[in-house]
Amino acid sequence: MPDAAPRRVSLTALTEFIARAYGAVGVAAEPARKAAELMAASDISGADGHGVFRLPQYIRRIQTGGINTNPDIKVIRRARATALVDGDNGLGALVVSRAVEEAIELARENGVGWAGTRHGNHAGAAAVYAAMPVPHDMIGVYFAVGNANHLPPWGGIDMLLSTNPVAIAVPALEEPPLILDMATTVAAYGKVKVAAQQGKTMPEGWMIDRQGQPLTDPNRADDGFLLPIGGYKGAALSLMIGLLAGTLNGAATGDDVVDFNKDDTTPTNTGQAICVIDIKTLADPVVFKRRVDAVIQQLHGSDLLPGFDRIRLPGEDRHARIIEREANGIPVPVALSAALDKMAAELGITPLFG
Amino acid sequence: MPDAAPRRVSLTALTEFIARAYGAVGVAAEPARKAAELMAASDISGADGHGVFRLPQYIRRIQTGGINTNPDIKVIRRARATALVDGDNGLGALVVSRAVEEAIELARENGVGWAGTRHGNHAGAAAVYAAMPVPHDMIGVYFAVGNANHLPPWGGIDMLLSTNPVAIAVPALEEPPLILDMATTVAAYGKVKVAAQQGKTMPEGWMIDRQGQPLTDPNRADDGFLLPIGGYKGAALSLMIGLLAGTLNGAATGDDVVDFNKDDTTPTNTGQAICVIDIKTLADPVVFKRRVDAVIQQLHGSDLLPGFDRIRLPGEDRHARIIEREANGIPVPVALSAALDKMAAELGITPLFG
Repeated sequence: MPDAAPRRVSLTALTEFIARAYGAVGVAAEPARKAAELMAASDISGADGHGVFRLPQYIRRIQTGGINTNPDIKVIRRARATALVDGDNGLGALVVSRAVEEAIELARENGVGWAGTRHGNHAGAAAVYAAMPVPHDMIGVYFAVGNANHLPPWGGIDMLLSTNPVAIAVPALEEPPLILDMATTVAAYGKVKVAAQQGKTMPEGWMIDRQGQPLTDPNRADDGFLLPIGGYKGAALSLMIGLLAGTLNGAATGDDVVDFNKDDTTPTNTGQAICVIDIKTLADPVVFKRRVDAVIQQLHGSDLLPGFDRIRLPGEDRHARIIEREANGIPVPVALSAALDKMAAELGITPLFG
Repeated sequence: MPDAAPRRVSLTALTEFIARAYGAVGVAAEPARKAAELMAASDISGADGHGVFRLPQYIRRIQTGGINTNPDIKVIRRARATALVDGDNGLGALVVSRAVEEAIELARENGVGWAGTRHGNHAGAAAVYAAMPVPHDMIGVYFAVGNANHLPPWGGIDMLLSTNPVAIAVPALEEPPLILDMATTVAAYGKVKVAAQQGKTMPEGWMIDRQGQPLTDPNRADDGFLLPIGGYKGAALSLMIGLLAGTLNGAATGDDVVDFNKDDTTPTNTGQAICVIDIKTLADPVVFKRRVDAVIQQLHGSDLLPGFDRIRLPGEDRHARIIEREANGIPVPVALSAALDKMAAELGITPLFG
């Protein structure tokens, strides 16, 4: 039986639904709305694995006491241009957005601002946070510690590193902003789970087993681990991101990372870091953004390799999805819709398509 | 006929030789010494392709007017925590070290400092600059635009991007510092040149040709281009680094990058950027460095994949080479030694092994 077509939901309706769910488990109205907006920002931009798809897991974690619904999120260390935010085990989106807001203000005053988080949680797509400085004519460089270790050090088999992502967002003038959002592994672990769901074989290069042999059966994922991009380079990059986003902030890195897919109760002490650069301190923003446009246009003008129909630059697909989904709504796959209906019934809230 | 064994030279003797060469082409004593120390810092740490190996090329570029021997290197824009350094087309090492020194001072005052360069030149190994903040209990994050475009945008064949490296240096307490220094391509272009010299075939995955087929003959390097790490991810990372290190500073990125291997006269307008974070504004430095030690020891303790004899972390080989070369001298291959002798004779200076 083929899957039914996904139903579409408006950004507003999705945000309200997420906020209702948070409200039902004890999050106050204002933070519930804000966390909902930040979660829906992943959905509207096509980062479907980081949006409402995660909501039942978040709610379950709140219900088991694994996330604090009434956190005292505050800056616990501060220099002129840096801030360390303690999230008090609150929802990750609230903790990270607070850090980004701090860094934007620090950058406005100093040209650059750096903010780190501790005692946070999974916060959704990295691009959402890296892009927050862009409307201020600022650049965002974001690092995060992933919430499960799927990567060993290079040459090893003990999974002590996560897919620690980096995201960089740079505004353009007439072109959409350039937004890189990448895990340091060839494939994100979510892609492995999708392949397993769909009964598909993974290409060689995504995973290897403990003997170092290619692992292509996604149902055997527990027998191996993800491969980092560029071999030892990606593993090293993941390590350094973990130090910047985790260790420096007193957050988890290495063997104290909690696998939030398997453990709903232990606080994750997730860490992130954001560096914000105020463009006007280094360049005239319009001149800079026009140059970014020119670079984009040069790259688009490249002749193509066989098999490619156009040059896709980082953030372009995201931008196109935002436009399409703002116009047509966000598609909610049938299986996800059913899971959300079940959650809504349990919480006693109006369902998404109510 | 087998190659003769390389002769060894002390760091002091190498530094003095490089300074003599710079002096002979018009660089004043103090900047000549400083640029020589920074070049030799690549050699002592094993970044052989970025050290004295480059000296004949630098000297040739100076002699043809492609580098300014008496530059007015100065900060032309400044905010509280940022600085833009104009290198006046001086030696890259002098321009970048000035920017790093600025960023260290900015970080000391503000917790974080960001400095960019324009009108600089090739400056040697990225690790040298990323590591400069480490003795100050600071972290360095360094980005640079490469000096030749060997990478197309993903899906394209026009080489509009360089191997733009990123380097990140983090101090530890008893362990050596962790220092990542990576190009955004699977192989650096220098490795292709070495393979050609040695008559070796390249592994698949380093380069492809304009039809997208693997290119393994290094003598055909001009028929193709380097592959980025992680496919589209590495190409996107290279682009973003180019924007941060080049475009933001008014330096070259994209089609205005000068191939300094083929053009000795056109100013390269090379750009770099450094972000320095003062650890003490976010954590107690001793506590932080002890945690870094603990992460290092965890990773070293991982069980091994077949074929590996130990876990190598970023910066460890570099650290070991510094110790070995400080004790035994820096090996200078016979062919390089002959090239340096020839250059010394032309400049009328005492040769390296004089």
